[in-house]
Amino acid sequence: MNIKPLGDRVLVQPLDNKEEAKGGIIIPDSAKEKPQEGKVVAVGTGKRDDEGKVIAFNVKKGDKVLMPKYGGTEVKVDDKEYQIVREDDILAIIG
Amino acid sequence: MNIKPLGDRVLVQPLDNKEEAKGGIIIPDSAKEKPQEGKVVAVGTGKRDDEGKVIAFNVKKGDKVLMPKYGGTEVKVDDKEYQIVREDDILAIIG
Amino acid sequence: MNIKPLGDRVLVQPLDNKEEAKGGIIIPDSAKEKPQEGKVVAVGTGKRDDEGKVIAFNVKKGDKVLMPKYGGTEVKVDDKEYQIVREDDILAIIG
Amino acid sequence: MNIKPLGDRVLVQPLDNKEEAKGGIIIPDSAKEKPQEGKVVAVGTGKRDDEGKVIAFNVKKGDKVLMPKYGGTEVKVDDKEYQIVREDDILAIIG
Amino acid sequence: MNIKPLGDRVLVQPLDNKEEAKGGIIIPDSAKEKPQEGKVVAVGTGKRDDEGKVIAFNVKKGDKVLMPKYGGTEVKVDDKEYQIVREDDILAIIG
Amino acid sequence: MNIKPLGDRVLVQPLDNKEEAKGGIIIPDSAKEKPQEGKVVAVGTGKRDDEGKVIAFNVKKGDKVLMPKYGGTEVKVDDKEYQIVREDDILAIIG
Amino acid sequence: MNIKPLGDRVLVQPLDNKEEAKGGIIIPDSAKEKPQEGKVVAVGTGKRDDEGKVIAFNVKKGDKVLMPKYGGTEVKVDDKEYQIVREDDILAIIG
Repeated sequence: MNIKPLGDRVLVQPLDNKEEAKGGIIIPDSAKEKPQEGKVVAVGTGKRDDEGKVIAFNVKKGDKVLMPKYGGTEVKVDDKEYQIVREDDILAIIG
Repeated sequence: MNIKPLGDRVLVQPLDNKEEAKGGIIIPDSAKEKPQEGKVVAVGTGKRDDEGKVIAFNVKKGDKVLMPKYGGTEVKVDDKEYQIVREDDILAIIG
Repeated sequence: MNIKPLGDRVLVQPLDNKEEAKGGIIIPDSAKEKPQEGKVVAVGTGKRDDEGKVIAFNVKKGDKVLMPKYGGTEVKVDDKEYQIVREDDILAIIG
Repeated sequence: MNIKPLGDRVLVQPLDNKEEAKGGIIIPDSAKEKPQEGKVVAVGTGKRDDEGKVIAFNVKKGDKVLMPKYGGTEVKVDDKEYQIVREDDILAIIG
Repeated sequence: MNIKPLGDRVLVQPLDNKEEAKGGIIIPDSAKEKPQEGKVVAVGTGKRDDEGKVIAFNVKKGDKVLMPKYGGTEVKVDDKEYQIVREDDILAIIG
Repeated sequence: MNIKPLGDRVLVQPLDNKEEAKGGIIIPDSAKEKPQEGKVVAVGTGKRDDEGKVIAFNVKKGDKVLMPKYGGTEVKVDDKEYQIVREDDILAIIG
Repeated sequence: MNIKPLGDRVLVQPLDNKEEAKGGIIIPDSAKEKPQEGKVVAVGTGKRDDEGKVIAFNVKKGDKVLMPKYGGTEVKVDDKEYQIVREDDILAIIG
């Protein structure tokens, strides 16, 4: 199944912090905004500027990103969990 | 009966997830924002930009879309349920 | 008595769903936003864009429209009930 | 005493609905937003657009208007009650 | 002591309604927004438009104005009470 | 220690009203927004307009200003208390 | 591990006020908005203006900054705590 996010939205597959993020980023459970690592699976159709040109994304398919849980929407596709988030809500690219 | 949504609104027919979305997207009932699959039945007259030109829709009649329940308005036409939603609230096109 | 709505407002005469909307649109009473059918009786003087030109209405006198109750103002003229709503709050034209 | 409203404000003298509005507009007391008839006594100095030009009023001295109570400010001048309202809050001109 | 308000602010000296406003404007105490008469003592440095030009004030030193209490800030200078208000919050000039 | 405020922020040293403001501005303690006198210690790097030019400050180092407590942030530097406030929140220059 | 903040975000390493800020800035614990000293570890990809040009940052890697806790997001990388904040929320550069 193929999902094409609309506008400035991005489809992100959350990564299991314990296994994937060895020695990496750990977010305390008690934090109100829970950022988490994820992998960009698909970028959207793109937002347009005032002149109608599509604004380029700063993230691309395959990027590992740090995202807050707040603001996104959980979806399940073929039994896997994903998040659809607006690109502006993504905090950082992890390299 | 014919319904023409106004502005950037779209008329969407919700799809029965259990029957139509085999192996597809399942949204947990407990989620506050309940996205769901639907089929675009009609797009609106279109929003206009600052120069008065109609902004094209990213979705078209027949597209399967993923939409949050929040933000839309339920209507019943000829005993069928529909949603009228602004295009910007539609999360993704499912292909 | 003549009423000329100001700006992007529209004067709408609600239609009795039970009699007029045979086999048509039925809105559940429990819905927080109660859309309802109505007939446009008068459009406003029009909103102006940044250059001062009047923006054309998408609805015209006589159109049957689908409107949410929320956002409008009830008025009674010559013992008949009307709604004054901003055009952007009207959901769709019913044809 | 002379009152010159500032900007897009308008000075309105409320009309006694029972005596003046014979067979006219009756607003239910229970409505949260109570529109009411009034007569424009004075228009303001006018709001200015981005280029500094004064934007013309859609109402003029003497117009009978339909206004919501919400959003205006009551003032008493020479023992008469008036409302100072922004023009955008006036619902319609009654002709 | 000299006070120069910043931006679109105006320094206003409230007038004693009972003595100064003979047969004039009386505002009911129970009103949530309490407008009151005052005299403009000093206008501000002026707000600037998008091109950096100072926007002229509609009020000038000495004008009697009608202002809502809400939105201003009370200050005491040399034992006299003043209000610092943004010009847009001033309702009208009283002539 | 040197502090350079960012953007349109200003570093202000509060003045002891009792000693410095002889016969000057006294603000009632009960006021929700407590303006107070202060001396500008440093202005920020400046906000930029749409074309990228730095917008000049209306206050300069050494100015005595009247500021509301609300909206600023208290900091302590070398055992002295300061406020960092946006320039637009400063009410007036006291001369 | 490398973190590249997105847009106008900045990655900041909080400094231990007691050890690093000798005779420096002490923020009372009871303050609702708790500013604190930190060191800029990485600036973001940059926000773009209306013409698509990247807006330069006012802070650079290595700068000591004063930041409010409110508005940022805590992350842990390689067992060290960081904050990701928008540049506009940073109060000042400490030199």
